[in-house]
Amino acid sequence: MDKHYVGIDLGGTNIKGGVVTASGEVLHFESIETEVEGGRDHVLDRIGMLAGKVRDAAGLQPEQIAAVGIGSPGPLDTKRGIIHEAPNLPGWINLPLADEVRRRCGYPTFLENDANSAALAEAHVGAGKGTQCMIMLTLGTGIGGGIVLGGRVWHGADDIAAELGHVSVKYDGIPCNCGSIGCVEAYASATGVVRRARQAIEQGADSSLAGADDSLTCEQVFRAAAAGDRLAQQVVDDTAAYLGTAIGSLINIFNPDMIVLFGGMTNAGDQLLVPLRHEVRKRSFKIGADRCKIVCSRLGAEAGVIGAAVTAMQALQEQREA
Amino acid sequence: MDKHYVGIDLGGTNIKGGVVTASGEVLHFESIETEVEGGRDHVLDRIGMLAGKVRDAAGLQPEQIAAVGIGSPGPLDTKRGIIHEAPNLPGWINLPLADEVRRRCGYPTFLENDANSAALAEAHVGAGKGTQCMIMLTLGTGIGGGIVLGGRVWHGADDIAAELGHVSVKYDGIPCNCGSIGCVEAYASATGVVRRARQAIEQGADSSLAGADDSLTCEQVFRAAAAGDRLAQQVVDDTAAYLGTAIGSLINIFNPDMIVLFGGMTNAGDQLLVPLRHEVRKRSFKIGADRCKIVCSRLGAEAGVIGAAVTAMQALQEQREA
Repeated sequence: MDKHYVGIDLGGTNIKGGVVTASGEVLHFESIETEVEGGRDHVLDRIGMLAGKVRDAAGLQPEQIAAVGIGSPGPLDTKRGIIHEAPNLPGWINLPLADEVRRRCGYPTFLENDANSAALAEAHVGAGKGTQCMIMLTLGTGIGGGIVLGGRVWHGADDIAAELGHVSVKYDGIPCNCGSIGCVEAYASATGVVRRARQAIEQGADSSLAGADDSLTCEQVFRAAAAGDRLAQQVVDDTAAYLGTAIGSLINIFNPDMIVLFGGMTNAGDQLLVPLRHEVRKRSFKIGADRCKIVCSRLGAEAGVIGAAVTAMQALQEQREA
Repeated sequence: MDKHYVGIDLGGTNIKGGVVTASGEVLHFESIETEVEGGRDHVLDRIGMLAGKVRDAAGLQPEQIAAVGIGSPGPLDTKRGIIHEAPNLPGWINLPLADEVRRRCGYPTFLENDANSAALAEAHVGAGKGTQCMIMLTLGTGIGGGIVLGGRVWHGADDIAAELGHVSVKYDGIPCNCGSIGCVEAYASATGVVRRARQAIEQGADSSLAGADDSLTCEQVFRAAAAGDRLAQQVVDDTAAYLGTAIGSLINIFNPDMIVLFGGMTNAGDQLLVPLRHEVRKRSFKIGADRCKIVCSRLGAEAGVIGAAVTAMQALQEQREA
């Protein structure tokens, strides 16, 4: 009988957990609060508890689970299962997360970066199923990424590959939080979208957003554009140009099968995808642009959990082969 | 007894050939003229002849050669050994080059893109020996590249990966020959260097290059900078900034062990490397920048031949494993 895997998607607000079959099907999924304020051990206990809880809820016996995978914010050491630092989990410095969870739930436990987990899930059972080279961009407050080559996450020498928000699209552009210049994240993240809209308004551009207070969101900008607001439309078009430049470069670098977009901004759907695909065509070789599908994530909220489970599956397999 | 491999580096002006051991040592190397004007079959005959000639010159018997590899300008179909088109070899359209050469020399023959071949050579026996991720940039009239992951060339879905000259460093920059905008090749290739120097002179900048005629070269610009010419120095500094932006992005994408620079512009040595490394530090994550060595090619003129031989070695091995 095939074994199953528990996937955990660890965030600062929620911990998602699921039981996933060897073919990537989710048997049970649930989300609990992280309760960061309870302290580190409390959160670790909750992860261990959730692993057992989803197993039981899926109607499985303890021996039917082969391993646990955790998708976590980074930076991490995936080989040693250590979380070096997590912005949303105060005090989690150089924590041997995989060991701590293994001790609590009794299963072999493996760690992966959360964006990589989501990318791995899409490549295995989502939009990118069957691809040999799939690149994910996570479009949210910041821009992250995951690169899946031949079904495996590309980690790089120090587990910090796929910082795709920090592809520079303008060598003499605006400064980025990371210290570099002109990163696509600085322009085209949700934060970048709002900042550009605000700047245009401050410079006196006529817009339905003109009265917006400090709570202006990226979603509002896209909605205003859809409603015919010219300033907002310019901001959306520019966003497509920035993203299209970075994706065009990625296509010329990797000649990938697929780019998958993930995260809040993808709710805009064709409003973003149509101009983005147009920009990518202008900015990459024809054969590569013809090849590369640009699509939105298919798995949504369950991607992290599935990817964490696939991480555990692959890690066990590698241990067996070694 | 270990078998040996013949590597052929096919160019529009010269065909280089060499006998290479299984450990990448060159036993014999020579270069003959391509004689393109003799027509396609004449050039194919010369390739076949050269394979036998270098084998004999190395003092080997026919059975001591296991296979022949050819590094060729592209675009290619490396799996089927077909050259789709070669700008410097008129009339070479969809030519089954590997089959044609195999028929002439009697050995299994395999094809690889010339920039990929050079990269593969550096990764196996040159500057990048022992690396898991090595990226080569060829800095010449244009800018090309090769990506070697885990000792293998990354080809992409259509054999057109690693077009590293067409990473855009300015989304609203100057048009590139490829049709895109702001490609690093448009700014930082030898052609780009000369064009920028010329433009500055035309705009009246004071420079020792001011009287230069149409034959102004990239080398002259670098030499003038070394001699204290301020305009030339600005052109060199800008070149480092453009290349540093593209390389910084590659570091954030791949988290590679090494970037190897290849081609004519690397003759500038530290005059290019020192400002380039400085720019890369400004434009990539610290851990990735600390990790990634940026060096010049070690193999020089023999890189293509060695890489073609390694291509043949790997292809034979894959055939055995399949």
